[in-house]
Amino acid sequence: MNTVWRLTSRPHGPVRREDFSVSVEPLPTPGPGQVLLRNLYLIVPASMRLWMNAEDTYLPAQRLGAVMRGITVSVVEQSEDPAFPVGAYVNAMGGWQEYALAKTAHLQRITPHPDIGLASYRGVLGLQGMTAYCGLTDVCRPEPGQTLVVTAAAGSVGSLVCQIGKKLGLRVIGVAGGPAKCDWLVRACGADGAIDYKNDDVAARLDELCPDGVDMQFENVGGPVMDLIMARINRGARIALCGMVSGYQGGDNAGGHALMNLVNQRATLRGFIVSDYLHRAQEVCDRLTEWVLDGSLVYTEEFSDGLDSTPEAMNRLARGENRGTQFVRVSPV
Amino acid sequence: MNTVWRLTSRPHGPVRREDFSVSVEPLPTPGPGQVLLRNLYLIVPASMRLWMNAEDTYLPAQRLGAVMRGITVSVVEQSEDPAFPVGAYVNAMGGWQEYALAKTAHLQRITPHPDIGLASYRGVLGLQGMTAYCGLTDVCRPEPGQTLVVTAAAGSVGSLVCQIGKKLGLRVIGVAGGPAKCDWLVRACGADGAIDYKNDDVAARLDELCPDGVDMQFENVGGPVMDLIMARINRGARIALCGMVSGYQGGDNAGGHALMNLVNQRATLRGFIVSDYLHRAQEVCDRLTEWVLDGSLVYTEEFSDGLDSTPEAMNRLARGENRGTQFVRVSPV
Repeated sequence: MNTVWRLTSRPHGPVRREDFSVSVEPLPTPGPGQVLLRNLYLIVPASMRLWMNAEDTYLPAQRLGAVMRGITVSVVEQSEDPAFPVGAYVNAMGGWQEYALAKTAHLQRITPHPDIGLASYRGVLGLQGMTAYCGLTDVCRPEPGQTLVVTAAAGSVGSLVCQIGKKLGLRVIGVAGGPAKCDWLVRACGADGAIDYKNDDVAARLDELCPDGVDMQFENVGGPVMDLIMARINRGARIALCGMVSGYQGGDNAGGHALMNLVNQRATLRGFIVSDYLHRAQEVCDRLTEWVLDGSLVYTEEFSDGLDSTPEAMNRLARGENRGTQFVRVSPV
Repeated sequence: MNTVWRLTSRPHGPVRREDFSVSVEPLPTPGPGQVLLRNLYLIVPASMRLWMNAEDTYLPAQRLGAVMRGITVSVVEQSEDPAFPVGAYVNAMGGWQEYALAKTAHLQRITPHPDIGLASYRGVLGLQGMTAYCGLTDVCRPEPGQTLVVTAAAGSVGSLVCQIGKKLGLRVIGVAGGPAKCDWLVRACGADGAIDYKNDDVAARLDELCPDGVDMQFENVGGPVMDLIMARINRGARIALCGMVSGYQGGDNAGGHALMNLVNQRATLRGFIVSDYLHRAQEVCDRLTEWVLDGSLVYTEEFSDGLDSTPEAMNRLARGENRGTQFVRVSPV
């Protein structure tokens, strides 16, 4: 039998268990070109909260009554496609459920390295790593010696951006919530400085840590901190807009009060989505794998157990209580 | 003697006569490499109001007590540089005064066409035309058949953007204030549609006039209309941020509530300043001159008389009561 979570009402603010129906249903049977997957890990990206809102975003709004959308690492349990034999690991959109029927055309096989955990293929070597690497290299167009400011810098994407930025010869300043995260950014991720937005005078700290201004901004959050950074950009600055998580639960996350500085500084604010870079996935994954294996790319993964834990995992992430990438262990590997 | 206007206090809201001191001073004498200019026309761009605020923008904030900065068409009255003989017309930063001392290295000579008024070399063939042409071609990167939305579309820059957009094969929708301007946009400038932001339901009209979404946005205003347009951009849209005039008098002009759509649509918002395109000035001026002479580029110029009229000319512009480019006749040609 399959345990299936469906979104039945749209949360306002934090996600609540009551926004979902959970049912136990018969296992589906794969047809030709299909497989039955067992979901192992569900990744919990900040954007998952965004999908639950009524408005379409870069994906259509999650349909009420449908299985909640989710990005998974899964294993093939029954196969009607010889290219995806039973036991093969895959990247899938497996959803919030224990088992999923999938067309193999939509799957990528994972051949995990023995020294790298399976979940990491959805994290540091997957969406998170790709987002960090492609956003930084393609949208920010870094030049050695320039200054990069990263928001949500201790998060799963931000912490990789900081480290890749250092590898590319940048001065890197991270903004994160709380002294522990800030300390970790400097100590473990090699950031040149960290700003605790919950306790520091962010404007004063930006002035102190970016004496030559800001050439690149990797923006994950939106809101007033985004404005404070944008107010300090240099001529020709590049701002990669990866997300605006401060607004995902609803409410006002306007970051527009400093937009005029884009004119003053002839600067570019560009939104991007990692799925537009899938043609570079192998190249980027190879490079990141090398850094993971030689120990030069630090990443943190947090796991919670069972789909029941997913709403709270999302809320911890929204409150900034996570460290690194959040995963839910859906079923045992 | 020279009549000189100095900014002595920074206006909040509209400009007031009391924000200036006016004095009558002896004429300066040019040294080597200098000329004494008589200012003929002072152009009144929306951004002049911005310069009066305390914050630096793309130019340093106007210094209190100094001659108010101003962009002029001027004539050489005394010369210490044979390349700029007496009687030569020049583009200058002549300021709010009747006469100005200038280094000739900072001047461009104008050789006016007999069928084109002198002031136009600061308007349709000058900053305004360059801004429209370079912003549209370089920042919006138009492709024939795509949809362009222009704000402040009946203004000096916007009306040229609309017309150049039509020449480049675009579907052009202009946003302007009042039925007269909207009528003029469609009738005289060839816009495919016009939206009266003062009287129309802007969102509904955008949906009606841009059934295929918005590929390019030429933004002069900021504020809530900017957001309504940004909410309708297509994948890969390009937004040229020329100015945010709604905020020049102070107050809140945030346009950030729709920023997340830059991510959803992988779109680019880029600020630009015409002065970065001076290397293209001759090429663009030649092209615009051709269109002006063959009658295919419509432009409107309004003149007021004497420096005394400048504050009110600025306020009329800020209230959107102008038609086309505003000039002050500083002294008789």
